[in-house]
Amino acid sequence: MHRISEIAEALGLAFEGDGDLRVSGVAEPAGCPPDKLAMALKPEFAAGLAQGEARAAMMWAGADWSEYGLAAAILAPRPRFAMAGLSALMDPGQGLGGGISDKASVDPSATLGQDVSVGAFTVIAPGAQIGDGTVIGPQCWIGPDAVLGAGSLLHAGVRIGARVRIGQRFIAQPGVVVGGDGFSFVTPEVSGVERARQSLGDQGEVAEQSWARIHSLGAVEIGDDVEIGANSCVDRGTVRDTRIGEGTKLDNLVQVGHNVIVGRHCLLCAQVGVAGSSTIGDHTVLGGQTGVGDNLRIGSNVITGGATKVLANVPDGRVMLGYPAMKMDTHIEAYKNLRRLPRLFRDVARLRKTVSNSGESD
Amino acid sequence: MHRISEIAEALGLAFEGDGDLRVSGVAEPAGCPPDKLAMALKPEFAAGLAQGEARAAMMWAGADWSEYGLAAAILAPRPRFAMAGLSALMDPGQGLGGGISDKASVDPSATLGQDVSVGAFTVIAPGAQIGDGTVIGPQCWIGPDAVLGAGSLLHAGVRIGARVRIGQRFIAQPGVVVGGDGFSFVTPEVSGVERARQSLGDQGEVAEQSWARIHSLGAVEIGDDVEIGANSCVDRGTVRDTRIGEGTKLDNLVQVGHNVIVGRHCLLCAQVGVAGSSTIGDHTVLGGQTGVGDNLRIGSNVITGGATKVLANVPDGRVMLGYPAMKMDTHIEAYKNLRRLPRLFRDVARLRKTVSNSGESD
Amino acid sequence: MHRISEIAEALGLAFEGDGDLRVSGVAEPAGCPPDKLAMALKPEFAAGLAQGEARAAMMWAGADWSEYGLAAAILAPRPRFAMAGLSALMDPGQGLGGGISDKASVDPSATLGQDVSVGAFTVIAPGAQIGDGTVIGPQCWIGPDAVLGAGSLLHAGVRIGARVRIGQRFIAQPGVVVGGDGFSFVTPEVSGVERARQSLGDQGEVAEQSWARIHSLGAVEIGDDVEIGANSCVDRGTVRDTRIGEGTKLDNLVQVGHNVIVGRHCLLCAQVGVAGSSTIGDHTVLGGQTGVGDNLRIGSNVITGGATKVLANVPDGRVMLGYPAMKMDTHIEAYKNLRRLPRLFRDVARLRKTVSNSGESD
Repeated sequence: MHRISEIAEALGLAFEGDGDLRVSGVAEPAGCPPDKLAMALKPEFAAGLAQGEARAAMMWAGADWSEYGLAAAILAPRPRFAMAGLSALMDPGQGLGGGISDKASVDPSATLGQDVSVGAFTVIAPGAQIGDGTVIGPQCWIGPDAVLGAGSLLHAGVRIGARVRIGQRFIAQPGVVVGGDGFSFVTPEVSGVERARQSLGDQGEVAEQSWARIHSLGAVEIGDDVEIGANSCVDRGTVRDTRIGEGTKLDNLVQVGHNVIVGRHCLLCAQVGVAGSSTIGDHTVLGGQTGVGDNLRIGSNVITGGATKVLANVPDGRVMLGYPAMKMDTHIEAYKNLRRLPRLFRDVARLRKTVSNSGESD
Repeated sequence: MHRISEIAEALGLAFEGDGDLRVSGVAEPAGCPPDKLAMALKPEFAAGLAQGEARAAMMWAGADWSEYGLAAAILAPRPRFAMAGLSALMDPGQGLGGGISDKASVDPSATLGQDVSVGAFTVIAPGAQIGDGTVIGPQCWIGPDAVLGAGSLLHAGVRIGARVRIGQRFIAQPGVVVGGDGFSFVTPEVSGVERARQSLGDQGEVAEQSWARIHSLGAVEIGDDVEIGANSCVDRGTVRDTRIGEGTKLDNLVQVGHNVIVGRHCLLCAQVGVAGSSTIGDHTVLGGQTGVGDNLRIGSNVITGGATKVLANVPDGRVMLGYPAMKMDTHIEAYKNLRRLPRLFRDVARLRKTVSNSGESD
Repeated sequence: MHRISEIAEALGLAFEGDGDLRVSGVAEPAGCPPDKLAMALKPEFAAGLAQGEARAAMMWAGADWSEYGLAAAILAPRPRFAMAGLSALMDPGQGLGGGISDKASVDPSATLGQDVSVGAFTVIAPGAQIGDGTVIGPQCWIGPDAVLGAGSLLHAGVRIGARVRIGQRFIAQPGVVVGGDGFSFVTPEVSGVERARQSLGDQGEVAEQSWARIHSLGAVEIGDDVEIGANSCVDRGTVRDTRIGEGTKLDNLVQVGHNVIVGRHCLLCAQVGVAGSSTIGDHTVLGGQTGVGDNLRIGSNVITGGATKVLANVPDGRVMLGYPAMKMDTHIEAYKNLRRLPRLFRDVARLRKTVSNSGESD
């Protein structure tokens, strides 16, 4: 149970009303029981308070909380941001941690910092280095000579490949794979794909060839405060490391190919794919299912809408949408026009008839 | 070996011919050996019987089986539906089950029902509850206080997060993650993404900001008779639970974001992604690689074709296709028109020339 | 440390300069330390040599290496292909192998060839057969009666289902799932989806129905020299096996549905999805995020650009792009035209005004 006054203090926010009221968690306003804090972050959510039994709520600055029948409110100038601190305070977690399981397999040559936890059936390979306070869940694999910074959290079944280097406070959801081999294959002679890319569509004479594997000699380097979502994959580089900058967050089922460089404080939403050797600047947000072709440069502060397919470089600050990716306003206009085409076809047909009827020679 | 008469009886179907004939499995008609049941479910499949050695077949009601040189046939009014029962009868399974492995790690505070199996290297955390007859494969992780209903089957490497609640007869293919954290991050000040969404493309002045994590305090609630495909992910909710209704099936590599509500008896085909806080009605079918943006409402009985990208609400009963999603017939018409554009450009150019030649002032 | 002359000999290439020079690995030209071999594979890369300290480089045939201040060079007629052999020579690997872990669970009825390695917490089920020299990493699961050819390498957490048969020199990155169940469900009565497919958009009267599961009685058959990327999935077939031909490579997060047949020497790039019962010829390359609908035939030597969505059959040798997939040149033309539509609308509006002003009757 948390006292309203204590929550407000922990978050650096003001409260009004009965600061001694206690809550055991949070709830949506409409179904909120009396012992939870209602998340009435904006007026349309607050409308739900009438259906619930909340006695206290988190609300926007200036909200007239007493009007909603509450006994107390915590008031936040940017309630969505206040949720970050509040949710960290309230999170009961997934029960990971608690020391080094006797069912783990930790190589004696691995270096574990202070207060490291290692879950059951996890393997830590020779030469791996784990920073202070890091919690590694069950069934993980940390490859040879991998480095994992302090204060990190690996959920169940995370795989970190050999020689990967990761900064502090890293979070990996279940099933993450960092440092699998890049997808890099080459034919003995020039392939149809190479020719089709040069000619934009003509692959020329096609020869029977098989693919030789180019091994990935680089690793992956990840900055501080990065998070990677469930079952996402970051491949190792071919010659140098694949890189992900500090503060960048990847959602679930994201693919980052070999040699890719993702800058700082980016968001890559679910099912995004970035093909080999492309670079992404800082503070860029790629919407869910966005695809980025190989060897492209995406600038900083770029935003792509859901499922944008980027087939060419994108300068800084652009907001993109569509397949192929266009500036968002161009895209919206283009598709409005696409829907208006039937009318245009009719108009032109009518014009041709009119002009033809008017007896003009062609 | 199964007798034809017994198979027919088990499926509630009629057979004709020699009911004592025995088969050890099923096969496609063209390569069918004499001891298998040929799946000649429609006339074009039955044509293959001549190349095979089948002595018995599953066929459509009214099929003239003797004409195909068979000794027996099971006749089904809807043969594809009969496949459901037949395949259940014939499935040798994946060898899971067989009691609680001494290589598993089951917390003493977990509650296991009657006849529960737990595979090697599986972890069951404190407070988890497993229903009667449920089979948990090897290398799974069941988080603290998770509830898994009776008669369920988890294949290898499935992760069920803390406090997730799942109904009866749940099936999870290998690598499924239910209850990873939602992808929810917020900047201290209003971000470019927030502005671009409001203005449809203009993100305004861009400030250097980093992302604060909003923890997922909700869990996931899954109804009875749900199946989830290999390496698919269902994230926990932010305040309330993410929900999947009874009878709904998810294919492989599907992403269901935080707070999403999927109704009853839906199909989400492979690589579908549903972004945070969207809702999907009942009996809706999303084709492979469909994307649904965040905070949208997709109705009941909606069908989306492959790779449909849904950027706006969809009312009940709609059949959609394309990116952006349009009604299927509108989409087909629009793309026909797109291909006809070169001719339209030529027509208009010719008209302009004609009209200009005709001496009219512009 | 490798001598330049020895590397050249191992690769069957010529070297020039000081063959006794030794290198410990490879690096990009611009950041290359003196003890690494710079990958100056083409003139634009070689320009970086001036910023680095390389003393030796891999270069194209005929390169004037001494001009770049190098002491030695290995010259390759097709440097990208030479990378295959060079990278294999230099790869330190992921530390897998080293015998059968006493923390693995290997059923006594499984057959292991000579020099097989099995990692910690791996389960090998009854009747499985593992070929000579195969290395199985930690936390893998090999199902009952599965067959895995000689010289294969499974990274951590790979799952191979029951009765799956795989050829020699197979490589699976972490988290691969081969032989999960197909996504095959059927309603008792004709469903809206079946009707919508026939009518191209009209699902008719919608009845409340639930989905019955069709079990996958087939397995998966994979040829020699196949590689599958991290967290990719290949489903088992319904009646016969799903098949992947020799030499074919799948990238990360790829989905291959039930009954699919992929030919020989294909590349399926990251996040590709191929829906049930489709077939793909030989030497076909599907770009990242390509989707292939169910029951389609994609020919041999087909190339699809990134995110191509294939909704109809594709003949041999085609280069495709877009959604819906078009021939690449048609697609490029169509989208140029889409962007030119605003001008066309203006032109037509002006023409209508002109023609109308000219007094012609409509």
